[in-house]
Amino acid sequence: MADRKLFIGLDVGGTSVKMGLFDEAGELLGKGSVPTPPLIDSAGYTAVTDGITALLGAASEQAEQVRGIGLAIPCPVPADGVIRMQANIQINAPGLQAALERHCPNAAVRFENDANAAAMGELSAGTAKGFKSFVFVTIGTGVGGGVVVDGHVVSGGVGAGGEIGHLCMNPTEERSCGCGGKGHLEQYASATGIVTSYKAACEASDTEPVELEGPSDSRSVFEAAKNGDEAAWTAIDSMCDYLGRALSMISCVVDPEVFVLGGGTSNSSDLFLDRLCASYKRYAISVCSDTPIEIASLGNDAGIYGAAYVALQAAETE
Amino acid sequence: MADRKLFIGLDVGGTSVKMGLFDEAGELLGKGSVPTPPLIDSAGYTAVTDGITALLGAASEQAEQVRGIGLAIPCPVPADGVIRMQANIQINAPGLQAALERHCPNAAVRFENDANAAAMGELSAGTAKGFKSFVFVTIGTGVGGGVVVDGHVVSGGVGAGGEIGHLCMNPTEERSCGCGGKGHLEQYASATGIVTSYKAACEASDTEPVELEGPSDSRSVFEAAKNGDEAAWTAIDSMCDYLGRALSMISCVVDPEVFVLGGGTSNSSDLFLDRLCASYKRYAISVCSDTPIEIASLGNDAGIYGAAYVALQAAETE
Repeated sequence: MADRKLFIGLDVGGTSVKMGLFDEAGELLGKGSVPTPPLIDSAGYTAVTDGITALLGAASEQAEQVRGIGLAIPCPVPADGVIRMQANIQINAPGLQAALERHCPNAAVRFENDANAAAMGELSAGTAKGFKSFVFVTIGTGVGGGVVVDGHVVSGGVGAGGEIGHLCMNPTEERSCGCGGKGHLEQYASATGIVTSYKAACEASDTEPVELEGPSDSRSVFEAAKNGDEAAWTAIDSMCDYLGRALSMISCVVDPEVFVLGGGTSNSSDLFLDRLCASYKRYAISVCSDTPIEIASLGNDAGIYGAAYVALQAAETE
Repeated sequence: MADRKLFIGLDVGGTSVKMGLFDEAGELLGKGSVPTPPLIDSAGYTAVTDGITALLGAASEQAEQVRGIGLAIPCPVPADGVIRMQANIQINAPGLQAALERHCPNAAVRFENDANAAAMGELSAGTAKGFKSFVFVTIGTGVGGGVVVDGHVVSGGVGAGGEIGHLCMNPTEERSCGCGGKGHLEQYASATGIVTSYKAACEASDTEPVELEGPSDSRSVFEAAKNGDEAAWTAIDSMCDYLGRALSMISCVVDPEVFVLGGGTSNSSDLFLDRLCASYKRYAISVCSDTPIEIASLGNDAGIYGAAYVALQAAETE
């Protein structure tokens, strides 16, 4: 037990920090979570380290045995690990890293972009297991991605590898994306995009939309489609058209062996996957037209699996 | 002299097979070329091996010292080396490989897509030297590309990595691309695309086009622009708009450290590079907006440098 090596994956989201404890074979030993504090001072850092203490305690393991901690965070992480942009979250990365290293003195701490971490999760233990190159696409409130080539995430020069939600698909769009650009994939293919397209289709056809629980409640739109709502199908077709063309373009850049779809919207894939595959085939060049599009298998756990895997990979190469 | 290791790069084009002889430090020892025969029978193979004999003879070197031969060919080459599509050239890859191995009995033979080979040339001895990740864009009759991540070309699952000429930029286009698709980057940003846009702009403005030497004589369009031809500037602006947006999308996928432009059209970069950079900045997400766009330095020799470098890399890892 003394030389048992453990790894922790932390998935830092807007509402909670999900935690997973893994052994060096990648087996999940325990899960936990804490509400996400502002990660900018010792009170915030302590909330996370207290969560780690509880996670280790529940599994009867010691902090000294933790050899690596990976953190999935919702912003670009360049290869040099220096985080420049913090779009959706308050985080002081060096401060948090120091607190974690104090708490687990034998652990190396690594940051990874959350979509990239989820991609690595699917590679290590999910749908992409056994592939060497694939592209992970996560469809939730926004659209994110992770590009894996030869078993490694492509972080890119400034950490923007896999930022496929911001592919400029439609340069004549007048509405703005959350990032300030216009006509980005995310505006059409995210849960929010589906809801926007649905409302527009209702207005165009002068029909009443179903009740929606918020601006990204794509689930209600998918339910409406099941019930024969024409405007809902218009929104789904628009999503499939944009996303299929985007995937065809990604094939022209890195030509993955497989695409893997994750995020909340992928739970409704029975309603759109056939249409998405048809759209992809329509736009793809002939040699790439049979690239499979599959659904992620780890769900919300992909981030903790992937973050821990990144820490484990780093420990192995040291 | 007996253990001197040599490498040959062959760039198989539509009209000629260019040849370069290199030592193991990557120094160019000699160049040659033969007209491209149909590479499907012994007469064709012999034309190439005779060229190699002449190349070695001029440098007073022996066939036995050749440890690797790289061939740049104008079709996708997957990681497994099995060539499935032969778009622009008659080539029997296994037959040619066997003939080369008989001629240079100590040489391993490798195939690489021509744009990927040119990318590796720029990486080994040209503009991209010192970078780990970059994207090479070649603009000639068509548009090709090579995506390099961590010092290696991304070939992709079926060899379509870097096929950026076929990014579907404009799904409402009615004209077809050479590949059968519609609205591909190549239709707007290649030499042929520039000429097409120029003619359309002349027609729209009811002006007489300058004399053109063929359907891809972009040089005359650039000359016309220098002389103040408004339609020529319209064509150049269209090329920069499409290409800048395409590069911005490539940044969202692999986020290269630098873009390197090659091909015949890059010789006129003094006329369009500023506009292209402005277009790229307009479409790129903020973290990527400063990615430099530079001009290739090896010109027509990039293919022989890269093909030889691919053979040298393969010999080193064996």
